Amino acid sequence: MPSLSMDLPLTIPAILRRLRTHFGDKTVVSRRGEGALHQTTYRQMLERSAKLAGALRQLGIDAGDRVATLCWNHDRHLEAYYAVPAMGAVLHTLNLRLHADELAFIASDAGDRILIVDDDLLPLAQSFLARTPIETVIVVGTTDAPVPAGMRDYEGVLAAAAPMALETEVEETSAAAMCYTSGTTGRSKGVVYSHRAVALHSLTLGLADNFGLREADTVMPVVPMFHANAWGLPYGAAIVGANLVLPGRQLDARSLRELLGSQRVSFTAGVPTVWNSLLQLLDAEPGVVDLSSIRAMLVGGAAVPESLLRGFGERHAIEIIHAWGMTELAPLGTIARVPTRLANASLEARYRYRATQGTPAPFIEIRARSEAGLIPWDGEAMGELEVRGPWVAAGYHGAGIGAAAFTDDGWFRTGDIVAIDPFGGIEIRDRAKDLVKSGGEWISSVELEKRLMDHPDVLEAAVIAVPHPRWQERPFAAVVLKEARATAPEVLLAWVADGVPRWWVPDALVFIDAIPRTSTGKFLKSALRERYQGWYTSA
Amino acid sequence: MPSLSMDLPLTIPAILRRLRTHFGDKTVVSRRGEGALHQTTYRQMLERSAKLAGALRQLGIDAGDRVATLCWNHDRHLEAYYAVPAMGAVLHTLNLRLHADELAFIASDAGDRILIVDDDLLPLAQSFLARTPIETVIVVGTTDAPVPAGMRDYEGVLAAAAPMALETEVEETSAAAMCYTSGTTGRSKGVVYSHRAVALHSLTLGLADNFGLREADTVMPVVPMFHANAWGLPYGAAIVGANLVLPGRQLDARSLRELLGSQRVSFTAGVPTVWNSLLQLLDAEPGVVDLSSIRAMLVGGAAVPESLLRGFGERHAIEIIHAWGMTELAPLGTIARVPTRLANASLEARYRYRATQGTPAPFIEIRARSEAGLIPWDGEAMGELEVRGPWVAAGYHGAGIGAAAFTDDGWFRTGDIVAIDPFGGIEIRDRAKDLVKSGGEWISSVELEKRLMDHPDVLEAAVIAVPHPRWQERPFAAVVLKEARATAPEVLLAWVADGVPRWWVPDALVFIDAIPRTSTGKFLKSALRERYQGWYTSA
Repeated sequence: MPSLSMDLPLTIPAILRRLRTHFGDKTVVSRRGEGALHQTTYRQMLERSAKLAGALRQLGIDAGDRVATLCWNHDRHLEAYYAVPAMGAVLHTLNLRLHADELAFIASDAGDRILIVDDDLLPLAQSFLARTPIETVIVVGTTDAPVPAGMRDYEGVLAAAAPMALETEVEETSAAAMCYTSGTTGRSKGVVYSHRAVALHSLTLGLADNFGLREADTVMPVVPMFHANAWGLPYGAAIVGANLVLPGRQLDARSLRELLGSQRVSFTAGVPTVWNSLLQLLDAEPGVVDLSSIRAMLVGGAAVPESLLRGFGERHAIEIIHAWGMTELAPLGTIARVPTRLANASLEARYRYRATQGTPAPFIEIRARSEAGLIPWDGEAMGELEVRGPWVAAGYHGAGIGAAAFTDDGWFRTGDIVAIDPFGGIEIRDRAKDLVKSGGEWISSVELEKRLMDHPDVLEAAVIAVPHPRWQERPFAAVVLKEARATAPEVLLAWVADGVPRWWVPDALVFIDAIPRTSTGKFLKSALRERYQGWYTSA
Repeated sequence: MPSLSMDLPLTIPAILRRLRTHFGDKTVVSRRGEGALHQTTYRQMLERSAKLAGALRQLGIDAGDRVATLCWNHDRHLEAYYAVPAMGAVLHTLNLRLHADELAFIASDAGDRILIVDDDLLPLAQSFLARTPIETVIVVGTTDAPVPAGMRDYEGVLAAAAPMALETEVEETSAAAMCYTSGTTGRSKGVVYSHRAVALHSLTLGLADNFGLREADTVMPVVPMFHANAWGLPYGAAIVGANLVLPGRQLDARSLRELLGSQRVSFTAGVPTVWNSLLQLLDAEPGVVDLSSIRAMLVGGAAVPESLLRGFGERHAIEIIHAWGMTELAPLGTIARVPTRLANASLEARYRYRATQGTPAPFIEIRARSEAGLIPWDGEAMGELEVRGPWVAAGYHGAGIGAAAFTDDGWFRTGDIVAIDPFGGIEIRDRAKDLVKSGGEWISSVELEKRLMDHPDVLEAAVIAVPHPRWQERPFAAVVLKEARATAPEVLLAWVADGVPRWWVPDALVFIDAIPRTSTGKFLKSALRERYQGWYTSA
């Protein structure tokens, strides 16, 4: 029996109609370049976005064409977020932390036709442009420096453009945006989000048990708009009508603290390293800036040490919420809100839960598989997490690319090794490729890293699998100590032994100055593995 | 460009998978018949629902077949909510307040094949059954009375059934549920909800700016499950994993107060008359039951007087939230959460806003039309509200039925006369058919009723249009005074004149014992119009 419900599509134009008609007066504050703060309203931004769309159409952009951005978090980047998908084209956010060779590959693979780029990133753009199909470059200026010959000035382009209606309909299954995985191994792969995926994902961010975004919020995404759509916050804020604060390129702890305080930010989101820096600053200079407006600070993108949650909660009365996602999930997958059954548990138990990845957002489904098949949900068994849901990627851009990441019955294989508790809460024990396979058993490198990082002298720790003549692989720890701290490897290994099974304890531990990282700030363990691969065999 | 997002459908089976895997231990407490409270878990209910689905399949129910219910709010009604749509059939909730003739028409029009009925409603069922295509009657017993010959016992049916998987997929655009409009005029019309409509609507109830449903909630729908899906609360609670309390047929203020307190209910929803009764009880016996667990009490289904909001807020510290919906909207359309721009407004201004219908839920769009075309959003102009959105009806069941309720470009004409403020907040000024058209101008009967009901002596007031020799129509007021109160018509008319334009003041006001009502508790103004139609012309 067919229903008689309207088949109104879930699209970014629908979000923008809502933004304009109900929240046009709400504000967007941006740090442009090194300069002062720039304040505007959603209404003004939508008018400018309509001009941007008109200009892009005049430059030959049609439905489905890719428009790339290479920008920090600011209002003009947000205008592209609105204009490009709403005109039926595809917004391709380039990751400015990548190497020129990688960017050349990605822009070519995506088939980008236009690039919108911040003026301070022009040197990076010029290092790969010639190797891409990009025809037109539009420069977002933050200084008086002239735009290079052959390129266009963003404001000039807008001034000359006839506005184009942004609120016409597109198919909800058509492509809205593209983002490439940052991949710690292998080549980057393109993820193509549908309007429906973006709309549903953004809607979810307003759920009380999720980010709980609401009209009364002032939201500051520290997570970059150049990766995984800043965790959906630009569109999520639009749906609920929250104010936005976009911090530009000044992402040091002092600049962030200033913005959080002066703009009375109520919700912000970033990776653990960013919040770690902020915590150190707040600890060193407590009470300098009034941060009482913050109702929640989201952390994700990497495992979060319990000490970070505790540090903000106990010393600065700021609640940190831990969530887990991936580029392939648009990106939100799970969130670690303390469930009712733990409401009266000990503070320890609650912090322990909050450091896990938590339970899935609505309509996201999970399961995990070991070599023996689907694992039981007992909180003990480890398996690779598989997910499905209406905003999960069903494949990668390009015929046959990354097909191994999908199961025969259509679930996405995350590459994360997890345990699942009886309530469907997940805890990531490792990345599949970082697991230590010792004597036929699995050892979680992440568990060992968490244990090490809970030690008061340790700033960061990476544990890798190193080939071993007897056990096939054994764990190996590389540790960065906090400034002005000193300790011995044996002391730290004894500390580890106190918290994990005896046979998990690394056979070696070295001190290093810094852990190599990927463009998005994740540990680059492949570099460590290369450096230390002969440690046990040649020793 | 096609996207590469999974096309996982938004369906009730998806909601039930989530409920079982993450919230199976959460509880459902029901009052069954006159008896004690019955407590169960979602896991147990889903197992029983699988048996109900198996039994229905064995009774010949296939995809698209209609299964009717004639039940109060309780766990076994909820089992039908889960089983019927999840097996691909269509849940048709019959309104037990309707007349037998109307029910006979509705069950025939829908083509119901099976009826699940509460034992205390058997006399009603038996008064129309013979006039319907219903083949099988399943009786939900609350006493030891034997089931009538030719009918089946619900528990017996379940005991004999083989369970059927509830979590297989259905098309998201297929029909999940049916509900007939209660229509104060004309015959009832069938609304057919898709799985997608139900899923999106239910998801929306978890938004922080909407009902804000969350896992920590204990939700008690006083609104009937036999009309408009109890405002979506049964499925909304399932998505977030909230506990449910289902009050059965004892809906008097004392019984409700007892349940709200003993079950530590945090969220509840009902029509104004229900909460009015409760308010009177709480005023008469303050502090008898601890109701501090209630975080919000939703009111909708009829205009809400500011005095109700104030009474609960100021005298009992309970926040009432006003929302507006219709059967055709599944039913939620708008909600009146105080926006940030009024956060620092006077208490008066905030109460005034909270008594309006507020702004639309995400993806619901509004506009309004007068005889001169679409009205401006100035908070003054009046027009008929038109809506569209992914959970709005696109038509009624039956070829050509009610086509006039839809515009040429596919919007639903609500029949509500509204003004829209510059921020897209709506205020219902009247029902189109209740407007008083006096000398070519519109007078809002609702505004006059609200003004009258704000008078301390007035319990209820209805204002109708009565034919007038000079002005075409003039307003006429029928008023019910509070117990033991006395006043004169002139006094009340002077009170009205103090709050509305002079030419709006009714030309006559009479005192009556009770205002006639529809089956769902709305004013039955047609009865009043019939009674008083000659007042001005024959006077």
